[in-house]
Amino acid sequence: MSTTTVNYPEEFKGFAISDPSEWSNPKLTSYVPKTLSPKDVDIEIECCGVCASELAVLKNKWSTGPLRCLSSSYGPKTQCVGHEIVGKVVKLGEEVTEFKLGQRVGLGAHAYACNECSRCKEGNDQYCTKAVGTYSGVYPDGYVSQGGYASHVRANESAVFPIPDALESHLVAPLQCGGLTVYSPLKRGIEDVLSKGIKPAVGVIGIGGLGHMAIMIAKALGAEVIAISRSTSKKEDAIKMGADGFIATGSAEQWEEENADKFHLLLNCASSATELPLDRLLKTLKVNRKFISVGLPDIREKFEVSPFTFLQSGSTIGSSLLGSKAEAIELFELAAKHQFKPWVETIPISEAGVSEALTRLSDGDVRYRFTLTGFNEFFGTGKQ
Amino acid sequence: MSTTTVNYPEEFKGFAISDPSEWSNPKLTSYVPKTLSPKDVDIEIECCGVCASELAVLKNKWSTGPLRCLSSSYGPKTQCVGHEIVGKVVKLGEEVTEFKLGQRVGLGAHAYACNECSRCKEGNDQYCTKAVGTYSGVYPDGYVSQGGYASHVRANESAVFPIPDALESHLVAPLQCGGLTVYSPLKRGIEDVLSKGIKPAVGVIGIGGLGHMAIMIAKALGAEVIAISRSTSKKEDAIKMGADGFIATGSAEQWEEENADKFHLLLNCASSATELPLDRLLKTLKVNRKFISVGLPDIREKFEVSPFTFLQSGSTIGSSLLGSKAEAIELFELAAKHQFKPWVETIPISEAGVSEALTRLSDGDVRYRFTLTGFNEFFGTGKQ
Repeated sequence: MSTTTVNYPEEFKGFAISDPSEWSNPKLTSYVPKTLSPKDVDIEIECCGVCASELAVLKNKWSTGPLRCLSSSYGPKTQCVGHEIVGKVVKLGEEVTEFKLGQRVGLGAHAYACNECSRCKEGNDQYCTKAVGTYSGVYPDGYVSQGGYASHVRANESAVFPIPDALESHLVAPLQCGGLTVYSPLKRGIEDVLSKGIKPAVGVIGIGGLGHMAIMIAKALGAEVIAISRSTSKKEDAIKMGADGFIATGSAEQWEEENADKFHLLLNCASSATELPLDRLLKTLKVNRKFISVGLPDIREKFEVSPFTFLQSGSTIGSSLLGSKAEAIELFELAAKHQFKPWVETIPISEAGVSEALTRLSDGDVRYRFTLTGFNEFFGTGKQ
Repeated sequence: MSTTTVNYPEEFKGFAISDPSEWSNPKLTSYVPKTLSPKDVDIEIECCGVCASELAVLKNKWSTGPLRCLSSSYGPKTQCVGHEIVGKVVKLGEEVTEFKLGQRVGLGAHAYACNECSRCKEGNDQYCTKAVGTYSGVYPDGYVSQGGYASHVRANESAVFPIPDALESHLVAPLQCGGLTVYSPLKRGIEDVLSKGIKPAVGVIGIGGLGHMAIMIAKALGAEVIAISRSTSKKEDAIKMGADGFIATGSAEQWEEENADKFHLLLNCASSATELPLDRLLKTLKVNRKFISVGLPDIREKFEVSPFTFLQSGSTIGSSLLGSKAEAIELFELAAKHQFKPWVETIPISEAGVSEALTRLSDGDVRYRFTLTGFNEFFGTGKQ
């Protein structure tokens, strides 16, 4: 057995760091999984998308304390990330009812939701206050969760997604965090308009990993989609993705006047809130509509808007977190029906591959999403 | 004819200033009205509410330039304020269809809406981009509008409200700006909840002129209403107004934990946005609900909120402007049906009376709203 092969079920293996300075060079690490609970499922991982959240956690930008894994009550003191996981069910806790052995499934940014609170029951399990992140989340028993740049992941069935046969694994991977994160606010932000038989106008700000999927998804939902970026450098790509129009906010034009009162929804997929021309952007919203941010900035950044700006249209601003499990399933169906495909570059998993993906993502050198592949070959899995 | 008597229709008389330093001492002034347009109505004023917006305009706090009246193309270079007007129709433009001579009517913060744009047609005339404020607004012909601390006011019928007989003039006055300003976001913010047969929970922040009406209106709309204030000094009043509960944000209690995930709507009626514990308040919102501000601060103030704060519940923040004409009529019907009455102190109009009202409002010495009365006696009107 080579050193990369995993000795499941005693161990999981994954690429992990113990210090933020190592963010671009996670090392292959062996660790014990969390204790199996009756609702847990083990997924033998086939591939995993690479999400900008990973950079924020590995670089420790969303925290003011040390890496959370260092205080894990048992299991590794290292952090393995990755939360756009596709794989095969290889173990079922004794109370699992939704999945069967061998089934292809996925896992997004949450590995647990309680399924009992009012938020879970109302289809808002992404806001469950007991939810545990797929990595760097703390379970009630003190174990700090480990992500999907790994041989296996253990998660509660409440958070696991069934995946339709029509979708390819490396393309469905990025839909599970990035895609879902834009799908939920897009759907919730325009469903009232669609229900009146009106074609909604959606502005997608920031054409990167999130934004490129937002264009495709908004289009599939039936919206007129305008891509909004600082320069025209991504205009051609945005049109190919399906955008009906393009606004370059850094140009000298009076774009906010030309597009005044246009949008039913502005979805901000850019990672910085402070660098946006918010006061100008909000002028393009129709009455009582929303500007929703899904691109998460540094934890010290703040929105700064004058109350007077909102008065022009009674608009509001805020953020949206992920999407519900039901919405993930809707999104997969939408992708299968409309056959839209995220623009994905695959990179075979290895220390070099993980390092390349993280470094290039950090440098913005990605068009528009990475999926790490070849897990079965690397970890010697996939033989059952 | 005494010096206070008005020689209508050649002149209107009102209390006006020409410099912000005179804000607390408007002087009786004679002026020519704007040119009568075919849709205009002249209202002989019976009484007028006193709104905090008046202080902002008289003190010139919402502008970075000089008083707008100084550049009026014709008419007075002085500013008369007041936009919670009740009176009698005494003149009709030749195309007016909605009102008749002698009818009791009201006028709020807008004296004109175009009635032709998409916003007007969709019931959002308060956001009409061609709307003209009842005072300090600029008409297309360059006349700067003059408000209701006056003998008469001229306004487009699109902005004039019919008033039901059941409501007393001095009590309906404050409903037209202050009341409408809270009614619109309250109704729009909870109607989806009410339509599901659920009793919405509404938090009203700031128990002053706006907040005290918000408590009564939210209650009449069918909500559970929690009054939110810095100290407990207004607790007794809030309960008398109909509040079901009270939160003192300045207390040591963990009120945001006790009320986590409680509110369907937070309505901010406090005049300062920056002094609010926004990050704590937003924790009390349910998923995807709104924090709406109607208390307008100084023009230099900004909301400052971390994008992460919103993530706890996918909430949004923003402001709301006035309400539509249709909503004003709904509000009057609601007040007649539920017999709620703003807490109004009446002050007879005169230079001393206007000065007292403005000074005491500026000092916060009002429980909870002033209406200036006795206009007919003062101006020698009401004889037709």
